[in-house]
Amino acid sequence: METSQRIKKMREPALLKYYPIVNEAQKKGRKVYFLNIGQPDIKTPEGFLNSVNGIDQKVLSYQAPEGITELREAACGYYERLGLNYDINDLFVTNGGSEALLFTFIGICNAGDEILTAEPLYSIYKEMAAATDVNLVGFKTYAEDGFALPDESLIEAAITPRTKAILMTNPGNPTGKVFTKKEIEVMVKLALKHNLYLISDEVYREFVYDKQGYLSPAQYQELSQNFILIDSISKRYSACGARIGFIISKNKELMGQLKKLCQMRLAVSTVDQIGAISLLNLDEHFFDGILKEYTQRRKIVYDALQNIPGVICKEPRGAFYFMAKLPIKDASHFIEWMINDFDYQGETVLLSPANDFYLNPEDGADEVRIAYVLNGEDMRKGMSILKYGLEAYRLAFPEVCK
Amino acid sequence: METSQRIKKMREPALLKYYPIVNEAQKKGRKVYFLNIGQPDIKTPEGFLNSVNGIDQKVLSYQAPEGITELREAACGYYERLGLNYDINDLFVTNGGSEALLFTFIGICNAGDEILTAEPLYSIYKEMAAATDVNLVGFKTYAEDGFALPDESLIEAAITPRTKAILMTNPGNPTGKVFTKKEIEVMVKLALKHNLYLISDEVYREFVYDKQGYLSPAQYQELSQNFILIDSISKRYSACGARIGFIISKNKELMGQLKKLCQMRLAVSTVDQIGAISLLNLDEHFFDGILKEYTQRRKIVYDALQNIPGVICKEPRGAFYFMAKLPIKDASHFIEWMINDFDYQGETVLLSPANDFYLNPEDGADEVRIAYVLNGEDMRKGMSILKYGLEAYRLAFPEVCK
Repeated sequence: METSQRIKKMREPALLKYYPIVNEAQKKGRKVYFLNIGQPDIKTPEGFLNSVNGIDQKVLSYQAPEGITELREAACGYYERLGLNYDINDLFVTNGGSEALLFTFIGICNAGDEILTAEPLYSIYKEMAAATDVNLVGFKTYAEDGFALPDESLIEAAITPRTKAILMTNPGNPTGKVFTKKEIEVMVKLALKHNLYLISDEVYREFVYDKQGYLSPAQYQELSQNFILIDSISKRYSACGARIGFIISKNKELMGQLKKLCQMRLAVSTVDQIGAISLLNLDEHFFDGILKEYTQRRKIVYDALQNIPGVICKEPRGAFYFMAKLPIKDASHFIEWMINDFDYQGETVLLSPANDFYLNPEDGADEVRIAYVLNGEDMRKGMSILKYGLEAYRLAFPEVCK
Repeated sequence: METSQRIKKMREPALLKYYPIVNEAQKKGRKVYFLNIGQPDIKTPEGFLNSVNGIDQKVLSYQAPEGITELREAACGYYERLGLNYDINDLFVTNGGSEALLFTFIGICNAGDEILTAEPLYSIYKEMAAATDVNLVGFKTYAEDGFALPDESLIEAAITPRTKAILMTNPGNPTGKVFTKKEIEVMVKLALKHNLYLISDEVYREFVYDKQGYLSPAQYQELSQNFILIDSISKRYSACGARIGFIISKNKELMGQLKKLCQMRLAVSTVDQIGAISLLNLDEHFFDGILKEYTQRRKIVYDALQNIPGVICKEPRGAFYFMAKLPIKDASHFIEWMINDFDYQGETVLLSPANDFYLNPEDGADEVRIAYVLNGEDMRKGMSILKYGLEAYRLAFPEVCK
């Protein structure tokens, strides 16, 4: 029995392939610090559980395809606090940010159409493009200059008659990049000039350091008909297990079309929607302590990386990831070796190989992504283990080290 | 800004277009019985709410893309009670049956491939096919003989080199049709002969009347590599608002591919999955009272329809719908008129127009779907109103009556 070409084109996330060997290592009594995935350890705000624990609906019925009105209103209130004026008709609730992206790809692209985005990129964009017959086209950004946007002319050169959108992730996963005003204006300008959608995936919006203000194409009135905002409560409220996202646009024709995709899957979880209302109603100060915690973690990782010879990375300005070049030739081999053959006082770390974050899996061979989602002490230990691991790896495999 | 051809091809469910006029009628004080949608009024079993009310996870984290092991095990136990031997690796949890269908369409069809199904059909199949560039091809079944499967040769004639699957809904929505052993064997035979997948959407499995046993292509060993089972807890447990479905197959290559679609959207709601475990663990007797209730409702509707001159319908053997031919030429006009211009003692009914359930929207003009999802007294009242409505409509519009 055949399966489709489009599903065959999809790939499993590279990070999953390590779980069997991680299990083996754990069975041998080795402790593994998981720096590979973006699952925060921060407590989910109490309002979610309080709401869920208090639900007393006798019949758990379908909610409206567009989402519960009270949740959509709470979301509008949240955006208002960011200075964005959205009406509930500009906004649908989705099964996580993932579904918001899926609906966007289906809604604006025919099979064979193109979406332009910066590399390294969030790996799931690739799988979603394959599943929907969209061609993702990448322009490269680099660790050496903190993943700055390349020259406008270079991006423009990648636009073809089949390009339907520019997709940006701000702050970036896996890069931690936060786009500057100048960089955002380049993308706004290109979208307007070439009549493209600009899709901004802002699920890490609150994770911006060094007192930067909120900067987004959402703030450019002239772009409103071209602009699609993708959002999710997963990272902001440490509520990944509640599948609540949003697809947002002031383009009424587009939203009228996207509504049909919401109707196609009937509804989003009633319980998750009820739980999410209280989260969206939290004021911005709920994040103060979390930001402080992540700022400390970032410093721990950055200081540690600075002390490892041959590592190339700028301090990221957002999200909770470092994308770093290590002085090795094959990060996958190094990551496996760390789990199978290395420990420091019985402990080791699991990192993400960066080739998952490029369209061509041969790119990023010397890069890893480090998620700083553990508490300060664990992050500090994890970084020491990485340092000792690299030293031992250099002795064991000098020929694949730089 | 353009949207895609595939999303433009999708349509809004016809039944939604009546909500504005229903609101108007309600504002005027008219009571409306909703016989248009498949939202049961039955209480969700207590285990769901008890579990959800008792959740105390501090961090609401992602669950495995394939679903929580305990829920998958509970599902296997449920199928075992039906006499079906599924392992947890044969089964992934999805965001409702809808996502299970979406993944199936993407996983087995390239753009332009065909899936063959009986008409009238569940309207959302059409929208899902449009969204995924699949061509649904229909073969007709008719109210006059209770929507019996047409002759094998007629189905076979519709198979082309691009046909990838036969999709059956058993019991049927909107028809209430339950396939006989002979009919199932025709589909099994055709799938094997032409190397097609047979997709069986069995979300109404328990809603079978007259003491029929469980009959499904799932019971045919020789089909196991071609067979995909679609399931959902929505109807069985009156838990539509919990978005929990299943995609099931013993074809390991297919499941290996479909897993990538699960990974693409990361996870299904943690809370809904936890709630669902207790439902799948209920033994089969939990449904006895519900089936008795629906059997009574079916009788009420059937008896009433028998007493309306010119109505054509056989008693359905499953699900909770009647698909009936009325002695009128334009069911949409009649349905609107019933809301806008008719009441019996201040009350009226909302029905579904059947053209939504055909590939060609001009088909089914004289048919309606009646969902018997209200209690006996309300169903009885609703059917009286329908009878009086048809009489008044005949007087008002004799030229569009038969």
